[in-house]
Amino acid sequence: MQTKDLKKFFHPKSIAIIGASKDFTSISGKPLKNLIRTNFTGEIYPVNPRYDEIEGLKCYSSILEIQQKVDLALIAVSASRLTSILRDCIEKNVRHIMLFSSGFAEIGESGKKIQDEVAKIALENNINIIGPNCVGCLNVKDSIPMGFATSLESKNGYKSGNIGLVSQSGALGFSVFGLAQEENLGFTYVVNTGNEMDVTTLDTVEFLLEDADTTVIAAYMEGISNGEQLIQVAKRAKELRKPLIILKSGKSAIGKEAALSHTASLAGSEETFQVITKQYGITTVKDIDEMIDAMRIFSRGKWAEGKKIATVSNSGAAGIAMADFSEEFGLVLEPLQGETKAKIEAIIPSYGSSLNPIDITAQALKEQHILTDTVEALVKDDNTNVIVIQTTFGGELGEEICRKIVEIDQRVEKPIIVTVTGTEELTGENREILRRNGVPVYKTTHDTMLAVKHLVDLSMYHHDGSNVRNHPILAGPLVGEEEKNRIWTEEKVKSVLEQLNLRVPKNVILQSEKDVDQCIGKLKFPLVAKIISDDILHKTEAGGVKLGIQTIDEAKKAYQEIAQSTRKYNPSANIRGVLLEEMLDKKGVEMFIGIKNDPAFGSFIVCGLGGVFIEVLKDISIRHVPIDRTEALSMVEELKGFPILLGTRGEQRSDIEAFVEALVKVSDFVYDQNQTLEEMDINPVVVLNEGEGLVALDGLIIWEKVETEILVSS
Amino acid sequence: MQTKDLKKFFHPKSIAIIGASKDFTSISGKPLKNLIRTNFTGEIYPVNPRYDEIEGLKCYSSILEIQQKVDLALIAVSASRLTSILRDCIEKNVRHIMLFSSGFAEIGESGKKIQDEVAKIALENNINIIGPNCVGCLNVKDSIPMGFATSLESKNGYKSGNIGLVSQSGALGFSVFGLAQEENLGFTYVVNTGNEMDVTTLDTVEFLLEDADTTVIAAYMEGISNGEQLIQVAKRAKELRKPLIILKSGKSAIGKEAALSHTASLAGSEETFQVITKQYGITTVKDIDEMIDAMRIFSRGKWAEGKKIATVSNSGAAGIAMADFSEEFGLVLEPLQGETKAKIEAIIPSYGSSLNPIDITAQALKEQHILTDTVEALVKDDNTNVIVIQTTFGGELGEEICRKIVEIDQRVEKPIIVTVTGTEELTGENREILRRNGVPVYKTTHDTMLAVKHLVDLSMYHHDGSNVRNHPILAGPLVGEEEKNRIWTEEKVKSVLEQLNLRVPKNVILQSEKDVDQCIGKLKFPLVAKIISDDILHKTEAGGVKLGIQTIDEAKKAYQEIAQSTRKYNPSANIRGVLLEEMLDKKGVEMFIGIKNDPAFGSFIVCGLGGVFIEVLKDISIRHVPIDRTEALSMVEELKGFPILLGTRGEQRSDIEAFVEALVKVSDFVYDQNQTLEEMDINPVVVLNEGEGLVALDGLIIWEKVETEILVSS
Repeated sequence: MQTKDLKKFFHPKSIAIIGASKDFTSISGKPLKNLIRTNFTGEIYPVNPRYDEIEGLKCYSSILEIQQKVDLALIAVSASRLTSILRDCIEKNVRHIMLFSSGFAEIGESGKKIQDEVAKIALENNINIIGPNCVGCLNVKDSIPMGFATSLESKNGYKSGNIGLVSQSGALGFSVFGLAQEENLGFTYVVNTGNEMDVTTLDTVEFLLEDADTTVIAAYMEGISNGEQLIQVAKRAKELRKPLIILKSGKSAIGKEAALSHTASLAGSEETFQVITKQYGITTVKDIDEMIDAMRIFSRGKWAEGKKIATVSNSGAAGIAMADFSEEFGLVLEPLQGETKAKIEAIIPSYGSSLNPIDITAQALKEQHILTDTVEALVKDDNTNVIVIQTTFGGELGEEICRKIVEIDQRVEKPIIVTVTGTEELTGENREILRRNGVPVYKTTHDTMLAVKHLVDLSMYHHDGSNVRNHPILAGPLVGEEEKNRIWTEEKVKSVLEQLNLRVPKNVILQSEKDVDQCIGKLKFPLVAKIISDDILHKTEAGGVKLGIQTIDEAKKAYQEIAQSTRKYNPSANIRGVLLEEMLDKKGVEMFIGIKNDPAFGSFIVCGLGGVFIEVLKDISIRHVPIDRTEALSMVEELKGFPILLGTRGEQRSDIEAFVEALVKVSDFVYDQNQTLEEMDINPVVVLNEGEGLVALDGLIIWEKVETEILVSS
Repeated sequence: MQTKDLKKFFHPKSIAIIGASKDFTSISGKPLKNLIRTNFTGEIYPVNPRYDEIEGLKCYSSILEIQQKVDLALIAVSASRLTSILRDCIEKNVRHIMLFSSGFAEIGESGKKIQDEVAKIALENNINIIGPNCVGCLNVKDSIPMGFATSLESKNGYKSGNIGLVSQSGALGFSVFGLAQEENLGFTYVVNTGNEMDVTTLDTVEFLLEDADTTVIAAYMEGISNGEQLIQVAKRAKELRKPLIILKSGKSAIGKEAALSHTASLAGSEETFQVITKQYGITTVKDIDEMIDAMRIFSRGKWAEGKKIATVSNSGAAGIAMADFSEEFGLVLEPLQGETKAKIEAIIPSYGSSLNPIDITAQALKEQHILTDTVEALVKDDNTNVIVIQTTFGGELGEEICRKIVEIDQRVEKPIIVTVTGTEELTGENREILRRNGVPVYKTTHDTMLAVKHLVDLSMYHHDGSNVRNHPILAGPLVGEEEKNRIWTEEKVKSVLEQLNLRVPKNVILQSEKDVDQCIGKLKFPLVAKIISDDILHKTEAGGVKLGIQTIDEAKKAYQEIAQSTRKYNPSANIRGVLLEEMLDKKGVEMFIGIKNDPAFGSFIVCGLGGVFIEVLKDISIRHVPIDRTEALSMVEELKGFPILLGTRGEQRSDIEAFVEALVKVSDFVYDQNQTLEEMDINPVVVLNEGEGLVALDGLIIWEKVETEILVSS
């Protein structure tokens, strides 16, 4: 699935630094300094007409002067000089460029113009560019820093590991990297994409997913430029069982505006983004702390077999907090049973608690085995999927306990997560022992339980195999391109629903008043008559609807009145007839099913109850298309008005199953049309009592706008 | 208002340590070690019959052996030996005791028994006790550690300041203290109350409030033992303008259960606690990190004059995040205007942003003045109430900028809050400079904006002066004790409502069928008839209601039928008559007003809309009584169904003002009855169109249970 081969960016054998400076404190001096300092084993070619050599390296006046092959060019010159340098690179046959320069799309129209021009040249000449407005990238595995980000200068070197990180923002990305390194988390690659003239965050995620050493991917993005790509990478991440953590900013209106000016990206709708991430198993985080916390638990590489947590602490307060946050985060804390409970009762003091949270009491301050024996008992407990330990121990004892926890963690497959609360002075070394050995450790109960939630959510997502649907077969009618004239009114939508086996009232279409006589035998009174016209979408407002027709004469009269009213309402409307149909003789719950096309992600299906639920409470559920029955049921269940369907106030249970089936059928139909639907509205759908099904009473489809279309005047 | 004088606990001139041990690593050895190590200037008397001396101090076999006065006794002996030692203390006339021992209420019934016994002896002999199950207290001002908490052993000494901290949990309290000290926050006192046999968390808050050096109070509690006291301390905190930060655990069902076994407290209803804290201006936090973050911003002692935030950063990503979190936390980020905007435009690079968030760009990495000049411009901007700065600067430049921020912060009254994102290696010293000088500094944007939210919320609470009502005059009828027979049915409640000038339908009470003739001229048909009986509260179910009565004969027939049905429904019911009243001839929105008595806090007023809003959505607003018009309006506005009152779906606006007035009147009435009301229900209240008022159609009052009451059989 990978669209771009980025490997060459990060594994160059030779690097030219165009605009290299002797001033190693400057942006154009630092990339060179960093490569020298980390003993880059490939060739380095500084390019700057002002110098003959820098730090003993020959300095070239132009890249064209270099005789050898150049795999990668790092460019830190002003935007105005860029096009000519780019031409040199093309001549030199350099295929990979990192562009550190700023002054492009992020500064507005003038910069955007240069950026577009550069992008055009690059595309024409098959050049891959990271940036502009980028602070650099880092191949952590081979210790190759390419850029001027401050974290690249760390005196402690780089710790390699299994996390791949990509960030649209350089400051944020390298802050996360630096902070995570300080907590002993190891990385494969760190990439800052900046303005994403060519290589995007999602391109980089694709690359990281296919890299065997990278098993956890974290990305910061300020907008979703390619929704379909996001879904594809999420599906691939699921296949490979690699967690994909995304921090997306630009939630608020002002934040979105700021994102536009920052890296010139489209922040997109927060709501659809949340739906997509939940449905496709992307772990979303609110800030960099939560991102690092999620990295830590995922990089351990263990999965939860279920949602059941057992917690052990020596402080009652911590136990209470663990219980509180478990509930808040949807984790399950059940009292221990049988053998496990008996074992733990025998280990802890009589005034401790062998329930869950387990309180081993301050007595554990004296005897190491109290905590670790309790953990051993939980390891063997089939009802415990994740073990969470909280300690405040310092000193020798704390260290001894932590070493024992490391030993257990390395021996068993069950995730073991630790909170060590306390000052650096007292408990710093404890945390260090755990970190060095990859045991996920946190400072507060809140952060611990939130990380556990991420682990459990993703484990369950993989486990249930739910949500990601690859809809295999045609579900119903496939509409031909020629039929997709902009608007489909009720009668046409209803014929589609019938083909999907969704019930609509029995009906006939009248072309004239005379048709009534011929049709009427086929229908049962009372009837309803409705205008059919692409130009009259608000039928009631136009006087285009007559209810409660009881006789043939009333039907004829209705036809006349509708024809008259609608002609008056819109004299130029193209009227295609009058729909005459049976009125529903049963009561039920009025609901609706809708389809919305999102510019980034395509079709979403929406449902809800009518009346105050939609009008006052905006009580709706949304999913990306396609969905299956499980997903459809979850849509219905998450509605605030769901109890109405279960039957409140002495009413019977509604036919929820029928509605769920309808959602799936509509979703399948829409999916088959390959995103050519702009909007669909089936409203109301009357859901009858259990076993009686449902009836769709009205519908409308708007096909996507075709550029050449001539809109009917109205 | 203070109920207990705790000062003597924390300023002893002489301390006896009963059960003092030579083993300074043990719980009974540490209190002595800590006092010696901190050079306690008063007298120390170790008491332990096993030693003659400890560390050169004479050791006594009993407290009675000590000749001099003993101000405070620290006791760390087993629970079983406690009563005899307590008797010794009484004989020695020791008035203040800290009880470190565990094995009391927290271990269950047997421990509870000993605890109650000890409490009884203490009460009888006027002894003040902190604990048991407590790890100690610390007078930070005078550096007097009393206990064995690990944080008391810090090699770095104690940093005094303006924060007073009290915690029911020792582990949590001293963790918070230790972590806060490591970030340079200073304290006055740190108190762990443990099982709260005598001195409670709230008693300690009272003490801290009245201490002149303490200007910020933080408390951890696992339950609210005294709701009225919480409200009193909150009111006092408001008077003194001292922030009161509370972390309360035991939110979840399991957490609450764990709290019970931990320090034997009643966790109380989370919902009422949230209502109380919001209404009385208590800052609530979810975990210890947020508590420390709130301490930091409050301990600076500056207040926000409004909600308007201006943010400055050198990273676009940080700006977006600041905007996102501002919106999430209800802060206001408006574009800068006029002179300020022009000034900042002149300072920052052309490709920066002088909007808000202000992006000073990476250019600021080179020139210190870009950031600080921008801040100076914001200091002078009248539309900016709080300045939030985010930097990622390290090294010399970062330090220079931080020193300049300190200088500005000390010169101006406007709050200046800083986020320094980055590793300890790179930015640790920057944070240190700010912390040393009291400038609130945080590591992430989320934490920064959440702290700013706490500051702004409390500033606005003080500023608006809202919410805390001291209801001054009698609002309506004061019900005499003798009248408060358990249940008041509809007719009696309606007469109260009439006295409060709240409209009820015109009515008469029939004692017999004959009464109809005499009464009927006073009422307009159609009428409704309803049974009056304390024993029949579900009137409709009992056949006790007849609607739509159009004639005198129908009225008589209704009387007969009601008498018959209700007699059949409950033969022994005491029937006091039939209420005959006019039916409402107008439509409106059906709402309800209720009063609930909470065991911890007293009366709460509740309101909401009828129908699906209450039955399906549980859409209600709650406030503590008394409320004023502003508070009542906010109750109505926060209802999800509020748009119904504004007039959705072509309906007119309802008389919201009349409903608000009704809420205030009912609240005043209930407040005047001094919490003798157990329950009140006015349902439905039909709110008519704007200007037409409302009508209360039914009501019930249940007065508080009197122990001697004989319940009517049914």
